[in-house]
Amino acid sequence: MNITSIESEKIMEAAKAKAEEIGVPMNIAIVDEGANLKLFLRMDEALLGCADIAIKKAKTARFFNQDSGKIGKLSQPGGPLYNIEHSNGGLITFAGGVVVKDDNNKIIGAIGVSGGSVEQDQMVASAGINALK
Amino acid sequence: MNITSIESEKIMEAAKAKAEEIGVPMNIAIVDEGANLKLFLRMDEALLGCADIAIKKAKTARFFNQDSGKIGKLSQPGGPLYNIEHSNGGLITFAGGVVVKDDNNKIIGAIGVSGGSVEQDQMVASAGINALK
Amino acid sequence: MNITSIESEKIMEAAKAKAEEIGVPMNIAIVDEGANLKLFLRMDEALLGCADIAIKKAKTARFFNQDSGKIGKLSQPGGPLYNIEHSNGGLITFAGGVVVKDDNNKIIGAIGVSGGSVEQDQMVASAGINALK
Amino acid sequence: MNITSIESEKIMEAAKAKAEEIGVPMNIAIVDEGANLKLFLRMDEALLGCADIAIKKAKTARFFNQDSGKIGKLSQPGGPLYNIEHSNGGLITFAGGVVVKDDNNKIIGAIGVSGGSVEQDQMVASAGINALK
Repeated sequence: MNITSIESEKIMEAAKAKAEEIGVPMNIAIVDEGANLKLFLRMDEALLGCADIAIKKAKTARFFNQDSGKIGKLSQPGGPLYNIEHSNGGLITFAGGVVVKDDNNKIIGAIGVSGGSVEQDQMVASAGINALK
Repeated sequence: MNITSIESEKIMEAAKAKAEEIGVPMNIAIVDEGANLKLFLRMDEALLGCADIAIKKAKTARFFNQDSGKIGKLSQPGGPLYNIEHSNGGLITFAGGVVVKDDNNKIIGAIGVSGGSVEQDQMVASAGINALK
Repeated sequence: MNITSIESEKIMEAAKAKAEEIGVPMNIAIVDEGANLKLFLRMDEALLGCADIAIKKAKTARFFNQDSGKIGKLSQPGGPLYNIEHSNGGLITFAGGVVVKDDNNKIIGAIGVSGGSVEQDQMVASAGINALK
Repeated sequence: MNITSIESEKIMEAAKAKAEEIGVPMNIAIVDEGANLKLFLRMDEALLGCADIAIKKAKTARFFNQDSGKIGKLSQPGGPLYNIEHSNGGLITFAGGVVVKDDNNKIIGAIGVSGGSVEQDQMVASAGINALK
């Protein structure tokens, strides 16, 4: 199964609510099973350069079926995936990209969030995927 | 003034409602005054290749402050803007991209729609901007 | 010899004055002998999408040492340079790109103008290069 | 409010004057609120490869609403924004990109300077924005 519009909107609403709660305007992107953009929002006053980053975080999470931040631990100098960011038209490998799973634990897409600190981005992404649980 | 999230969501809702009414799943993109992506939705079953087209239509409309389809009339072989599509990282110059204006008739962004015939795309884009009137 | 900053600014001033005279806000780009950007201005209210077009017109003129509009006559369907616009990262081959020559008739750069009709663009480009004569 | 041509030219003049004072030919780029190029100059003898760098520094500053050099401190190996440079078509995250603010402390654009040491680039960028104060 692929992520639906209804699921995407649920995730988006929860992520947006968390962003408003912590007072950080965010860029929020949701991609589907094919890593293609499904839903995107740049909240008012969210940083302009974080739109592309949110999209790339979501894609990175789905490309490798794990949190974007985990890739970043492996892509450091000397690491096994050093500079993997050069692939796929550019990856973003710090925190804020998280896969979305359905009830059967199957990956159906991913969310990427950017606009605050990486901890805030990750928190908002987590709030998003929790809306499906 | 730049387009807000609330305005964008109003436009999106109206465009989506029209797409559902005519039974054509659409990709719908809204860009702001600076031609940067503000809101995007790929409806379930909407054509995958039309996501980029929707975004490019919205950008094309804002880049030249007119309907994307009007540019396409001028960019034909022998026309004054032949092959203008090669600029700005790629334009889409058939119908479906329309500028968004505020109450004072100032352009604050644009919408681009892709997924059906160009007439359907244009109809859905028009339904979107009418939501602000 | 390569075009200098002083020459570029003279050209820019003359082009801008002509644009103001005809009341059309323009994007004006000047490239040097190596087809690299030397001077650029987007006048207030000039069309956003015409910035890249102005730069590409200037480059196109210098790439082929002739008016951009002349290339466009040869790049039509069935023409000898059909779709040459795909080269060099994208050409713009309608009028508004003109080479800049020094006193010895040697090409030292080019100007590209975009924002009005192609006739207006060409007029403003011509006004620019006339400033060096 | 968006940055105007007059403001851009004031900034450019001040930056250029500082570059001449320290004897380092510079590439100087100014982008507007939407991170789109507004004004650009490559001074005579300025390094060719620094044109793109100046533009990217200006964009980087506006994309994240802070000095480009601050991003570079966070994007180092092991840092929270490691390899953020892969986003937005390429960032430049060392010093020389600075946001431009209006009288009400609202960001209206950014300047990027490249051609000397990063300290010199930053000095010239600062001289530029001080012209508006």
